[in-house]
Amino acid sequence: MKSEFLNLIEVAGIITFSISGVLAAQEKKLDIFGIFIIAFITAMGGGTLRDILIGDLPVNWMVNTQNAAIVFISAAVAIPFRRTIKNLQKVLIVFDSLGLGLFTLVGIEKGIDHGFTPAICVALGTITGCFGGVIRDISINNIPLIFQKEIYAIACIAGGIIYFLLIPFFPKDIVGMIVIAFIFILRMLVVRFNWSLPDMYRESKR
Amino acid sequence: MKSEFLNLIEVAGIITFSISGVLAAQEKKLDIFGIFIIAFITAMGGGTLRDILIGDLPVNWMVNTQNAAIVFISAAVAIPFRRTIKNLQKVLIVFDSLGLGLFTLVGIEKGIDHGFTPAICVALGTITGCFGGVIRDISINNIPLIFQKEIYAIACIAGGIIYFLLIPFFPKDIVGMIVIAFIFILRMLVVRFNWSLPDMYRESKR
Amino acid sequence: MKSEFLNLIEVAGIITFSISGVLAAQEKKLDIFGIFIIAFITAMGGGTLRDILIGDLPVNWMVNTQNAAIVFISAAVAIPFRRTIKNLQKVLIVFDSLGLGLFTLVGIEKGIDHGFTPAICVALGTITGCFGGVIRDISINNIPLIFQKEIYAIACIAGGIIYFLLIPFFPKDIVGMIVIAFIFILRMLVVRFNWSLPDMYRESKR
Repeated sequence: MKSEFLNLIEVAGIITFSISGVLAAQEKKLDIFGIFIIAFITAMGGGTLRDILIGDLPVNWMVNTQNAAIVFISAAVAIPFRRTIKNLQKVLIVFDSLGLGLFTLVGIEKGIDHGFTPAICVALGTITGCFGGVIRDISINNIPLIFQKEIYAIACIAGGIIYFLLIPFFPKDIVGMIVIAFIFILRMLVVRFNWSLPDMYRESKR
Repeated sequence: MKSEFLNLIEVAGIITFSISGVLAAQEKKLDIFGIFIIAFITAMGGGTLRDILIGDLPVNWMVNTQNAAIVFISAAVAIPFRRTIKNLQKVLIVFDSLGLGLFTLVGIEKGIDHGFTPAICVALGTITGCFGGVIRDISINNIPLIFQKEIYAIACIAGGIIYFLLIPFFPKDIVGMIVIAFIFILRMLVVRFNWSLPDMYRESKR
Repeated sequence: MKSEFLNLIEVAGIITFSISGVLAAQEKKLDIFGIFIIAFITAMGGGTLRDILIGDLPVNWMVNTQNAAIVFISAAVAIPFRRTIKNLQKVLIVFDSLGLGLFTLVGIEKGIDHGFTPAICVALGTITGCFGGVIRDISINNIPLIFQKEIYAIACIAGGIIYFLLIPFFPKDIVGMIVIAFIFILRMLVVRFNWSLPDMYRESKR
């Protein structure tokens, strides 16, 4: 059902969310098991919460295990290179923003498939895109970053609204591409507008 | 099924729980998105956890979206007036206690509808009434207030026990009113007995 | 379906996990209600999360309420004796390790009953055995112990792998006994190897 292109971005999103989890876990000096779990929570937590709330159980990663495998492989590769990766933050933010767009779109479309109202679909998109990070932050004893700095969530919500404004007029795939592009560009613009690279992994240092 | 009167109290309960979330979020200096989410978690978290545990999915607020709308409208109205509201704490505690009674009753009756034992029904009532606050506290990095100061939970549990003591003898609606009144009066009495207004939002200052 | 022997160990596991929760809650100076809730979360949290993720709802303790009763009775008995119990830590670790083995086995076999892949079954065993402690730690505002000190989780994962290595060759009950024994002995050996009794309840002092 999903195009090859979307699958590729989803995989890229999983990989960067997973690496983001590795970096956050490392700053809390978690051991190897903790790092893997936090990587998994970051990449899969949003979709898991979404599936629980709508009752689409067992949760997706138990049935389609290749996504879970991608998380663990990404984390395993990232752990030895974690210093280098931190210097690649600009690249990471690009991937992470793409993943945010795709995850949001997946959540919105899943909501539509289940017949929810547009407002709930936007909420499901936001949960899918953002709540992996929320559960990660709560697990490692931080106040969730997006409760304090709303860039992530605003991009998801705005992207979701655009989806429902455009869907009566354009084919679904086109709208999906536009939403992903919008969320991606909005997030990148915010980074640019601050005229400095926001250290998106500094959240655990607070 | 529910009477107009109960619906009115439920709405009042949602509003005050939502405002309570706004005040707690504000003390943690969350941004606007964080404030809305914490208001939502406070008002809807208990019922959401209850629905997940009993498998009544999708959770209620996804289907009956007017309750979610009430949360967001309450929070939106409360945010600009949040200093004034803090001075209205006496009024807030009245509403909050009424909401606690109603939420507990909703949980108990939902448990009965699903055929659970009385003990589980009392647990579901307590979860519905109290665990929105628990999830709120965990989300903003506090140890849940009711784990430290049991007024809330004891009132719910005692109310639930009274429900099952009376239900063989009186009509369901009458018993419901008595339980709500009992929880409301017990909570207000505790406040009175302490001879000072318990600052129910001081929990986040620890 | 389960043998008498396994039932006995499960009860022993519930009791020790429950007591472990009492001790952790006490160190955080929670009130009586908080202590009971934390005991319940410690003993039942892992199985509850497992049942939610696989959609086996209502969660088990709502239907088979005797396990919930065992938790509360254990906690009620433990609270007045909590100083003595702390001196019985060696005994507690024996029970706790047995419970860990049994809980892991229950999770694995539930995964098999639902037709999941071996990797997911091992994950479900680990969740059942370890995540009660994880949810307990998050609830009382600690970074989960097993994210920092992986003994628990490694024992569960290794036990799960051994289960699937042996199951083609031996009867299910025999494999179950071996897995429980393996997890039990591995955990006890780690304790021994450290040449000192690891204070498994010191986690809350950090």
